[in-house]
Amino acid sequence: MTTVTHAHVRAAAERIAGHVLRTPVIETSPGMLLKLELLQHSGSFKVRGAFNRMLSAGEVPESGVIAASGGNHGLAVAFAARALGVRAEIFVPEVTSAVKVAGLKALGADITQTGAIYSEAAEAAAKRAAETGALPVHAYDQAEVVAGQGTTGLELIEQTGGVDTVVVAVGGGGFAAGITLGTAGSSGGPKIVAVEPELIPTLHAALEAGSPVQVGVSGVGADALGASKIGGLAFEVLASPRVESVLVPDEAIVAARRELWERHRLVTEHAGAAAYAAVMSGAYRPEPGERVAVVVCGSNTDPATLTTG
Amino acid sequence: MTTVTHAHVRAAAERIAGHVLRTPVIETSPGMLLKLELLQHSGSFKVRGAFNRMLSAGEVPESGVIAASGGNHGLAVAFAARALGVRAEIFVPEVTSAVKVAGLKALGADITQTGAIYSEAAEAAAKRAAETGALPVHAYDQAEVVAGQGTTGLELIEQTGGVDTVVVAVGGGGFAAGITLGTAGSSGGPKIVAVEPELIPTLHAALEAGSPVQVGVSGVGADALGASKIGGLAFEVLASPRVESVLVPDEAIVAARRELWERHRLVTEHAGAAAYAAVMSGAYRPEPGERVAVVVCGSNTDPATLTTG
Repeated sequence: MTTVTHAHVRAAAERIAGHVLRTPVIETSPGMLLKLELLQHSGSFKVRGAFNRMLSAGEVPESGVIAASGGNHGLAVAFAARALGVRAEIFVPEVTSAVKVAGLKALGADITQTGAIYSEAAEAAAKRAAETGALPVHAYDQAEVVAGQGTTGLELIEQTGGVDTVVVAVGGGGFAAGITLGTAGSSGGPKIVAVEPELIPTLHAALEAGSPVQVGVSGVGADALGASKIGGLAFEVLASPRVESVLVPDEAIVAARRELWERHRLVTEHAGAAAYAAVMSGAYRPEPGERVAVVVCGSNTDPATLTTG
Repeated sequence: MTTVTHAHVRAAAERIAGHVLRTPVIETSPGMLLKLELLQHSGSFKVRGAFNRMLSAGEVPESGVIAASGGNHGLAVAFAARALGVRAEIFVPEVTSAVKVAGLKALGADITQTGAIYSEAAEAAAKRAAETGALPVHAYDQAEVVAGQGTTGLELIEQTGGVDTVVVAVGGGGFAAGITLGTAGSSGGPKIVAVEPELIPTLHAALEAGSPVQVGVSGVGADALGASKIGGLAFEVLASPRVESVLVPDEAIVAARRELWERHRLVTEHAGAAAYAAVMSGAYRPEPGERVAVVVCGSNTDPATLTTG
């Protein structure tokens, strides 16, 4: 297994500069910061890893790139492929929302919707990649992808001068692992609060078991946090004393998503509100004076569901 | 008439610091910046002027503050009043959207909905203020309000180190005038592109006539840009060679609002997309290399209307 380091994140940041948005940080109350990664191109952080993987690969084959995704990674790969002028073939499961499928079509990707959950789409994509020779861009368990996602953390440190704690959602773990690496400094780095829905506890279960294990996938976060096992690369990074694993119930995610809109005018998908839910619900309680950055990470949703859903 | 100056904007910035959000700026493509004032407390820039007016007043009477508004100013006054612990009475016309009326109720303001358009609600509010002795907070034609709105411009210059051009929507003109003052520097300051819907050309008509004149009020921007005459204070500032008046048709505003969501994940009301519409439609065409900041200024809308409206 390739180990990913802070240096890889730095290299990724140079590689993808100009292709991704430097997303803003706002301070909503003293010591409470939101990193607005939901405003990123393609509607999530995933485009950082996608660009880093593609730009690291040298020549992309004639058959282009191929990815399996709950939706956000597919959108990111399709966005990056269009920007770089290569073909993209995306496999998504049935659980992927209509708005994400429509987004993929708009980006000109070839789409196959197959399997009940992400892991089944991923199997189909792997089989197809073996046939076509397309470059696989993994949704989380690939060194270039983890390093790319980590540029969010590096950017956060540059923008804030450092925080005590970063709160981030976990699906396959690539984003949280990347941020853990990207925020690492000579004195360790901030605490990482890794938040998962109770119904998809990939990291939580792996930490209890001592290694990645299969978990069930259900609930409101299923299309975006729908990996059924934490990535091996991510687990290697996240099994660290810097990282605290926290679970939130779906009701807390739904309430957080609503408050992000009503109070902060941010439209997120459910998964994008999971980290905020941990703080809002008290699943993670900052100490007085603790400087906390919550990463708000995905906005690929139908905004109509905010007021009618 | 009290003249407002750059120094008043600076004083306002000190006065309201901590009460308002320092809204972020993103660079969506080289030289194209968006100032995300739509993320401001209460969903628009209006809270800057509201706080500055109230904090400048010294003691607020027992009867509190009173304002007439198309909705956004009312929300801002109600928000500031709640923060400062004073009563707020808000008059809105029938054209005010349901989402804004609901927001006013949620903030605990006393609401009277009367008159077809803003100017009629304003007359009713003035009558009521004379009865109760409440402190009037004008939606645009008051020195403290103009200075408060101008802090958006001051902040923009601090955040960007300066731009060539600022594109901003005009209703009563308080915001555009404030930004013109707030961005003024020793060498003049950036060009201000003052954008209005074709159906509510308060500034455009005033510049042609040489003084403020009544115009019709209709179209998609009517609840937020619904003043029927440019403010006297605003006209004094905006009748300047630095300011270019530009009109956009409603279709361009609707298209811009849709693109702000689809491409940038920003949910705006129609008026909040008017400035962006000027650039997107070509009503204002930047020169090659021109560094342009578009102020995206209001998000008090039902997000469901983005996909169903």
